[in-house]
Amino acid sequence: MNMKENSRIEAFSDGVFAIAITLLVLELKVPPVASVRSISDLWNGLVHLWPSYFAFTLSFGILLVSWVNHHYLFNLLEKSSRPFLYANGFLLFTITFMPFPTALLAEYISTDYAKPAIAFYCFGGVINSIGWNIVLHTLYKPQKLIRSEVSLKMVNTIKRSTQIGFLVYSVATIMAFWFPIAALIMNLLLWIVWISLSITTK
Amino acid sequence: MNMKENSRIEAFSDGVFAIAITLLVLELKVPPVASVRSISDLWNGLVHLWPSYFAFTLSFGILLVSWVNHHYLFNLLEKSSRPFLYANGFLLFTITFMPFPTALLAEYISTDYAKPAIAFYCFGGVINSIGWNIVLHTLYKPQKLIRSEVSLKMVNTIKRSTQIGFLVYSVATIMAFWFPIAALIMNLLLWIVWISLSITTK
Amino acid sequence: MNMKENSRIEAFSDGVFAIAITLLVLELKVPPVASVRSISDLWNGLVHLWPSYFAFTLSFGILLVSWVNHHYLFNLLEKSSRPFLYANGFLLFTITFMPFPTALLAEYISTDYAKPAIAFYCFGGVINSIGWNIVLHTLYKPQKLIRSEVSLKMVNTIKRSTQIGFLVYSVATIMAFWFPIAALIMNLLLWIVWISLSITTK
Amino acid sequence: MNMKENSRIEAFSDGVFAIAITLLVLELKVPPVASVRSISDLWNGLVHLWPSYFAFTLSFGILLVSWVNHHYLFNLLEKSSRPFLYANGFLLFTITFMPFPTALLAEYISTDYAKPAIAFYCFGGVINSIGWNIVLHTLYKPQKLIRSEVSLKMVNTIKRSTQIGFLVYSVATIMAFWFPIAALIMNLLLWIVWISLSITTK
Repeated sequence: MNMKENSRIEAFSDGVFAIAITLLVLELKVPPVASVRSISDLWNGLVHLWPSYFAFTLSFGILLVSWVNHHYLFNLLEKSSRPFLYANGFLLFTITFMPFPTALLAEYISTDYAKPAIAFYCFGGVINSIGWNIVLHTLYKPQKLIRSEVSLKMVNTIKRSTQIGFLVYSVATIMAFWFPIAALIMNLLLWIVWISLSITTK
Repeated sequence: MNMKENSRIEAFSDGVFAIAITLLVLELKVPPVASVRSISDLWNGLVHLWPSYFAFTLSFGILLVSWVNHHYLFNLLEKSSRPFLYANGFLLFTITFMPFPTALLAEYISTDYAKPAIAFYCFGGVINSIGWNIVLHTLYKPQKLIRSEVSLKMVNTIKRSTQIGFLVYSVATIMAFWFPIAALIMNLLLWIVWISLSITTK
Repeated sequence: MNMKENSRIEAFSDGVFAIAITLLVLELKVPPVASVRSISDLWNGLVHLWPSYFAFTLSFGILLVSWVNHHYLFNLLEKSSRPFLYANGFLLFTITFMPFPTALLAEYISTDYAKPAIAFYCFGGVINSIGWNIVLHTLYKPQKLIRSEVSLKMVNTIKRSTQIGFLVYSVATIMAFWFPIAALIMNLLLWIVWISLSITTK
Repeated sequence: MNMKENSRIEAFSDGVFAIAITLLVLELKVPPVASVRSISDLWNGLVHLWPSYFAFTLSFGILLVSWVNHHYLFNLLEKSSRPFLYANGFLLFTITFMPFPTALLAEYISTDYAKPAIAFYCFGGVINSIGWNIVLHTLYKPQKLIRSEVSLKMVNTIKRSTQIGFLVYSVATIMAFWFPIAALIMNLLLWIVWISLSITTK
């Protein structure tokens, strides 16, 4: 399987990323007319949607960074394999799943029941980082898919950052049971670290 | 009609697959705030969504395997024809339909009325495998679209596995009236068989 | 603007077609659990969805044929222009609109108020065929975009069939006020005529 | 990063534009059967959806023009950079957000509470034009991404029109608090100006 092959997997993956990232907006619900009795009621309604804006923005950022990383990973490949194809499929599964924990977070973050919602949201990150780890594993087994000019050091850097992602999300999931806000902030920090890393490293 | 032609049909098909697979997530409904009175209520609500997680995962798997197969089939072609174009259109029809039986399964699998839902879900598989059989038929009639270097044996293997798919789904549909769980397990097995076949055969 | 230019407009149009055709499935609503008290209730519920299945199938067919035609039209072009770009944009507008009259048809076709729904559905076809007529107009004005080897006779055949589409949909819209079923059958016939024409003419 | 790189960012962006523009139709809600007691009730119901038709058409137009501009901007580039990638990501964020202010506008434009809805809608335009300004900024910093044959005059024209967009949307947002209709007309005019400019300038 050659480069043309990879470009089709890329195109399908791009489609899934683009749709998942756009479906997030469906969680933003217009305040119902029946609940509004004055202009300031509508303003209040729009302001009280802050958990939805926050969840939308956070998940958009995470999916965008994921897409950028996915995109750069494919640049390193020279061929494909069936195990890689299915590993990538599982990764896409964890991507299409994202709108659900996002909606959950938006619904519960401002209530007294935020802990399960935040733990579940972080757990979505755990599953996603498992997906990444499996994909990286199939780059070498059963056959090497990486272009020969790519340095082992670079691949190891990617692998390590994927393992750190798994660790951080796992810790955040557990922390959410006691310190939900701190768990969310860890999510946010991970995202900022990834963007700044990717901007500085090239 | 040449390869460029095929690549546009592929791109359109990839789009439909990517959207259908991503729309599945819309069936996952956040437990409504009004129904939650404690943190453990929300945990229970999330656990009680297992039929939705199950249906989402099953259908995601089926659509992913379908996409992989679609993708490999196109690699065997050297041209296109109008009948093939419409046969592929009908196949896509059966793919875009999938989110509906998936939602039905999620809604009813844990109720006393699971039988019709499971039978209908399996029937979705019957329609889908009819789509595949028609597509394979148009690869030879009215004109041969398959590349000359592809062996007849390979095409026959694909044809046979498509016919088996039709058979298994038909049997599962009928079985669902008496043994709904067994019918579902047949679906699951078919999916696992297809993945392992595809990984080993190339 | 060259061929590469056209291939991007094609890709964007393909995306819009693929999404509009897949969103149709969202109109299929699972019978609510609360309304079901026995297995036969659920079977009845699934059977009573026939207006939705019908509307889904009809609109899928119309959008698929539209995509096939769009796709063949682009094969005739050698360049693009801004007026063509916006004319194509208006055509896509009429395509993205389709899920709405489809949902309307599904909701009302089995009620006593079918006439407005069918008239509105046919009117969707009128708008769509206006879109096609404008696109065809921009193929020659302000500049010729058609490849020089394409015969004038072929272009005139396309133009005439587009004008006939406009006529048939207009008549169907008016007829729907008195003979709604006949108007729907005209829709169906137009679709069958287009498919069989396109299969025989190449 | 080379042209191939850019074509993937383009493909992802095209996907997001195509999905956002097609999701707008989900805001068109079929009048519920329970609210209809006669054929004229249904006609009235369809006519009373005018705010939805208006919002759908306006936002479709804005997104289409944005896509056309995005598309032409990419034609000027010869390479990509990480900051550009993230700036484009933020621009796409403002595009995927559009269905929400559109739904808000549709729900409230015909009520006594139109002012916040229109102000919010115009504010969506402010955010979008900030996105454009950031993208244009990354075309020169930290490195020049524009093809050398593109004249500085052309780039300055684009920059100026982006700054004017920001200004007009900001003024419209503020005006909406007192003269909501005038603010909406400014939106409409901006759109018409952009189309006519783009048709005449090439």
